[in-house]
Amino acid sequence: MGNPRAAFCEAFGLDHPVVQAPMIGPKPALAAAVSAAGGLGSIACAAMSPEGVRAEVEALRARTDRPFALNFFAHTRPAADADRETAWARRLGPYYAEFGIDPGSAAPGPERLPFDAAMAEVVSALRPPVVSFHFGLPDPDLLAGVRASGCLVLGCATTVAEARWLAERGVDGIVAQGYEAGGHRGMFLDRDLARQVGTMALVPQVVDAVELPVIAAGGIADARGAAAAFALGAAAVQVGTAYLLCAEAGLSAAHRRALETSGDADTAVTTVFTGRPARGILNRAMRELGPISPDAPAFPRAAAALQPLRAAAEAAGSGDFSPLWSGQAGALARTGTAADLTRSLAAGADRLR
Amino acid sequence: MGNPRAAFCEAFGLDHPVVQAPMIGPKPALAAAVSAAGGLGSIACAAMSPEGVRAEVEALRARTDRPFALNFFAHTRPAADADRETAWARRLGPYYAEFGIDPGSAAPGPERLPFDAAMAEVVSALRPPVVSFHFGLPDPDLLAGVRASGCLVLGCATTVAEARWLAERGVDGIVAQGYEAGGHRGMFLDRDLARQVGTMALVPQVVDAVELPVIAAGGIADARGAAAAFALGAAAVQVGTAYLLCAEAGLSAAHRRALETSGDADTAVTTVFTGRPARGILNRAMRELGPISPDAPAFPRAAAALQPLRAAAEAAGSGDFSPLWSGQAGALARTGTAADLTRSLAAGADRLR
Repeated sequence: MGNPRAAFCEAFGLDHPVVQAPMIGPKPALAAAVSAAGGLGSIACAAMSPEGVRAEVEALRARTDRPFALNFFAHTRPAADADRETAWARRLGPYYAEFGIDPGSAAPGPERLPFDAAMAEVVSALRPPVVSFHFGLPDPDLLAGVRASGCLVLGCATTVAEARWLAERGVDGIVAQGYEAGGHRGMFLDRDLARQVGTMALVPQVVDAVELPVIAAGGIADARGAAAAFALGAAAVQVGTAYLLCAEAGLSAAHRRALETSGDADTAVTTVFTGRPARGILNRAMRELGPISPDAPAFPRAAAALQPLRAAAEAAGSGDFSPLWSGQAGALARTGTAADLTRSLAAGADRLR
Repeated sequence: MGNPRAAFCEAFGLDHPVVQAPMIGPKPALAAAVSAAGGLGSIACAAMSPEGVRAEVEALRARTDRPFALNFFAHTRPAADADRETAWARRLGPYYAEFGIDPGSAAPGPERLPFDAAMAEVVSALRPPVVSFHFGLPDPDLLAGVRASGCLVLGCATTVAEARWLAERGVDGIVAQGYEAGGHRGMFLDRDLARQVGTMALVPQVVDAVELPVIAAGGIADARGAAAAFALGAAAVQVGTAYLLCAEAGLSAAHRRALETSGDADTAVTTVFTGRPARGILNRAMRELGPISPDAPAFPRAAAALQPLRAAAEAAGSGDFSPLWSGQAGALARTGTAADLTRSLAAGADRLR
């Protein structure tokens, strides 16, 4: 029968039970390198247009014919809330003044868009081997279209209840995202951060609850973490932060510097960058505006007003207003190639009987 | 050379690299059973008088001659803060009225006392094989006395910085307490809960930072969790919640019922029971007063005013006002004997090469 890792690799066409976490920020060359090395590279599509997604997939396929994942957000776009956005703009006013930015002229960055009919059409045309969703799943019709295109589907759970919800809707595997993880919390049924669960406790409880491959995420950055996740019953590991220092990621200077100098207790979960809880390295924006702010507009609307500050600060060489996404094991990240990291994570399995 | 588990067992005189976490609540028979089974049983002494500690140690030694640990709190007693305590009493007033309790006549429970000269004298007389401290370490003179009595000393770290602090002060091993853990957070250098680290990320970073045996705690409840902790480099595991359903623990009916019916996402860290952050199963007191309350007096003074409510609720068969301490893997706890659980946790090592 083999172990859950072997079954996962066979079902997903991989050499290694290693998923590179989808991340907005690193260059798509990272996903190609991980896939070419036999892991599952992931392209984060939430801030891309359908044309952008098409171009990235073509670029990846020019480099490797191995499986890869496209990742989408499955949130609902919030209604505009003028009062809250005015309050948020007022809260950011002093920073705009500090950087000499005219609030009227500031260009917002690309919005995080939910998976919609236009994206579903692109997916049907491109037929990526795997599609993964964050923040739940899209409408049943859209999901059915993805499955009809032959894509395997992954969902992300932060609790056993979310894992069961995803399993009932027919996903092919569940990313169990522990509280250590960097970037956006995938939480979608319960919004209470106080109840979010750490990887060590979450993974075995999800493994017990669903009859699906469980991909452990959160705090895994080297072969020790991968071995630990496999010991908990995970069929694979999903790793984000540790890939950020790989050459292929082309990380921004500010983010790289923050990662290289931060320690275990230098991250927090914040809502100030997008309106939804996400873990990053503590910086000025998080300290002064949050890290959790009741004023931040609903996801993803908080992001637009912060974007000009981020651009101005980064132009001055500072990451004070950038989302420096990182999990709690970011200090274990090392420079190197994505292929070496993928193989080294997979070698965690060699530590188990 | 052997592995860190074997070295830890040899240094501490154990058959199994398993520490039963000190817990106020379960009966001391639990510690005796774990020690007799070859693990390290721990007696939580923070709510005991010196005479009480002496009696428990005598009772344990009547049952087994194997090593055990005495655990003490190393906090500083706060000055009385009449305003804050008045505000807290006012906050609790409606509950007193609901239970028909006269605030003037209510008896506070036993206070959590810091390790002091009187306790140091008892330790010198009893010479327990191991003394473990929570919330840092006691004054250097008191600590020197403990060491001079031949006791091995364990300290508890929730961050790498705390682990280094403890290592510099000469402890013999470090409990790395991940955020999943039940009961009081051992945090003593940084009081910011937002920066507390999960077990998966914390353990390998502490292992890398100190040249001492690291005992992993938090979210470990079965052989899978123990194997995972060992894979991260831990020399031993410290397990609390999973022992609570053992027959020897003699757990209260309210606590047992809560444990048997709660899931992965049913705990939170709260300050309402003692004034210091501690993880327990969400109940009425935590939901309505917190889980974090700025009104709660400084540790341990928040506890006294809640005690009469706890007593009245428990007399009516309810755990609404009881601290239902539990880690995030409490749902993995099973009934059985402490010896069987100890051996089953130790067997996690058999899963590693």
